[in-house]
Amino acid sequence: MKKIDGGVTAAQGFEAASAAAQIKYKGRTDMALVFSKAPCVSAGTFTTNVVKAAPVIWDRDQVYSGAAAHAVIVNSGVANACTGQRGLEYCRQTAQEAAACLGIDENSVLVGSTGVIGFHLPMDRIRAGVRMLAEAKRPGREAGAEAARAIMTTDTVPKEVAYEFEAGGRTVTIGGMAKGSGMIHPNMCTMLGYVTTDAAIEKTLLQKALSAIVQETFNMISVDGDTSTNDTLLVLANGLAGNKLIEDIESEDYKVFYNALYAVCKELAMKMAADGEGATKLIETKVIHADTLENARIFAKSVITSSLTKAAVFGRDANWGRILCALGYSGAQFDPENCDLYFGEGEDKMLIFTNGSAADYSEEKAKELLSGEKVSILADMHMGEAEATAWGCDLSYDYVKINADYRS
Amino acid sequence: MKKIDGGVTAAQGFEAASAAAQIKYKGRTDMALVFSKAPCVSAGTFTTNVVKAAPVIWDRDQVYSGAAAHAVIVNSGVANACTGQRGLEYCRQTAQEAAACLGIDENSVLVGSTGVIGFHLPMDRIRAGVRMLAEAKRPGREAGAEAARAIMTTDTVPKEVAYEFEAGGRTVTIGGMAKGSGMIHPNMCTMLGYVTTDAAIEKTLLQKALSAIVQETFNMISVDGDTSTNDTLLVLANGLAGNKLIEDIESEDYKVFYNALYAVCKELAMKMAADGEGATKLIETKVIHADTLENARIFAKSVITSSLTKAAVFGRDANWGRILCALGYSGAQFDPENCDLYFGEGEDKMLIFTNGSAADYSEEKAKELLSGEKVSILADMHMGEAEATAWGCDLSYDYVKINADYRS
Repeated sequence: MKKIDGGVTAAQGFEAASAAAQIKYKGRTDMALVFSKAPCVSAGTFTTNVVKAAPVIWDRDQVYSGAAAHAVIVNSGVANACTGQRGLEYCRQTAQEAAACLGIDENSVLVGSTGVIGFHLPMDRIRAGVRMLAEAKRPGREAGAEAARAIMTTDTVPKEVAYEFEAGGRTVTIGGMAKGSGMIHPNMCTMLGYVTTDAAIEKTLLQKALSAIVQETFNMISVDGDTSTNDTLLVLANGLAGNKLIEDIESEDYKVFYNALYAVCKELAMKMAADGEGATKLIETKVIHADTLENARIFAKSVITSSLTKAAVFGRDANWGRILCALGYSGAQFDPENCDLYFGEGEDKMLIFTNGSAADYSEEKAKELLSGEKVSILADMHMGEAEATAWGCDLSYDYVKINADYRS
Repeated sequence: MKKIDGGVTAAQGFEAASAAAQIKYKGRTDMALVFSKAPCVSAGTFTTNVVKAAPVIWDRDQVYSGAAAHAVIVNSGVANACTGQRGLEYCRQTAQEAAACLGIDENSVLVGSTGVIGFHLPMDRIRAGVRMLAEAKRPGREAGAEAARAIMTTDTVPKEVAYEFEAGGRTVTIGGMAKGSGMIHPNMCTMLGYVTTDAAIEKTLLQKALSAIVQETFNMISVDGDTSTNDTLLVLANGLAGNKLIEDIESEDYKVFYNALYAVCKELAMKMAADGEGATKLIETKVIHADTLENARIFAKSVITSSLTKAAVFGRDANWGRILCALGYSGAQFDPENCDLYFGEGEDKMLIFTNGSAADYSEEKAKELLSGEKVSILADMHMGEAEATAWGCDLSYDYVKINADYRS
């Protein structure tokens, strides 16, 4: 398995485009298309928020129906959430326009939407945008990069990842793009993520892989504890790599595909956490020797979600009491007298807390370990063999600034 | 029942004092004493954090033992949490010093501690502080106010409330003090709250009243979602009002006592939320017509805990989509198509969201409703008869500033 430069157009047969449809933002692109020349099997995971945006319902129905997927149309600026019954109509009209322009079936079009909740979509502009996208679609690195930029809202950088690997003597490619960066506390899925692959893989196996991987990647990040109404992660597989169809969960080909999909999802998720609204640092919290996998995840997420811990990391203040406090209110049980906390990772890690009170550590070195772009926290629970990692970001003035007047 | 000026010294027989023991802060008081001339029955609720500070364990044992309580000693600056086995020893030494100075039993002394987690208590200074407190203790309004100021950490104002009422022909008084204002997301209790009363009331009834009231007052506020290791709420009742002992849960006297204790706890809790770290506004979220009381509470707390909602209120941005989003990820079920949202309260309230999408409301008036010191949000779930109210505060630059370098 090898990491390569690329995103949603890395795999064979995938094209992309962006367009400036003037939905809300001025002077930038705000619509993206991902298109596959061959029909795809699709898999997806979606928000668990009771309030589901219309595109979530549309895509979920498409994925569950088993119909082939051909294209994804995404707009940024307005989220098409809380728009009542009209929301689904917007999805249908978008898909109809795309189907007409691209010569594909309406039911093979997936849609995505991100931005402010509660405003109605300007459908004339959306339809014009779809026509521009259909005109502009093309293969290649730059088209994928354009699409990754067009779906950004408060993101400061586009997020793309691609890997290639061998399966049955053929080179298979898998790549993806995603966007954050506020209202990020995925539960079953994250904001918007799109992964494409030329692997030939059976649909139920693709969904099984995705559902398992999401638990350890997108569901383990948080920016602000708010689970969005629009969270959607889709994988499209068009089979153009020509590998023997992956249909056996025990096969080597499935394992290598799984690992590559895992790597793509993990890196997209980490990029999303690192680019959280106002973030200056990525926070990685690893919990080891927990009693159960569920509790390991609960502990790790509780730490990266704690506002006080996040603010302390922003200030490079080694206020480990807040980490212990967050483990303590997580809802999972442990013995504070038998838990070790470290800052840093690998050889460089430093023991901060042990036997129920502070270790004899250097505040200076602790500040140093909190000064990089990535801050690592390790908690050893001494209870069992389960472990989990979660990713978050610090809480800065800019988070408040961005969110105090987001709609303007 | 009548609200009066006062705090922990409002009730008969209670005295207080403050001292500058130089534990951490310079140029201010950092220790407080509350003393009752007559022995008290005590009741308490304590943090549910797995990591419990030593004073929580000490006080819990004192309250549960049934022994009479005579005095409370509190220090601010260092929290005596995560100090291992030494933490309980600090509590014992503090109680011993107080017992010797005040001529009371060691087991009648309750202790409280708030400030940075993880540092050891400078016991020489604490002991000297206890001696100063014993010298300075006196009845009266000013002594109570001094104590309320001495227990503050990042609080910007002291928090005191008192009520008086008639029970069995006698005037009974109940008053209290509390402090916030970060790591506030009480679960069974809040940071530090001390309530005193001269009511004669049976101990188990006092505990029953307190436990019920805490669910609707202190447990319904949040500043930052972080449940502290030190949360403690104590009530001391010395019986000096001379009322007939309240021992029947069906009696009128119990009901009027309950209402007064409720009023004191509710107002202290609201003061704590309003003075949350960096807060410029109190946010009150009322949920009506929920299906169950539990869900009503879950909905209300989810809204006041949402970082995105809090930042929007700081910016006076009527971003109601975030409120709906927070209801949606709360964990309780409802139908977004059948939920109404309002800003404001009473006659002045304005419908914002109904039938699954935005109501035809005035953005200007919405901004006005978000501009006061108190912002009211009302959610009508149209499901049943349960209701609940929760209180929080906005998320400002100053929250980040205060917490980025709290230990310095």
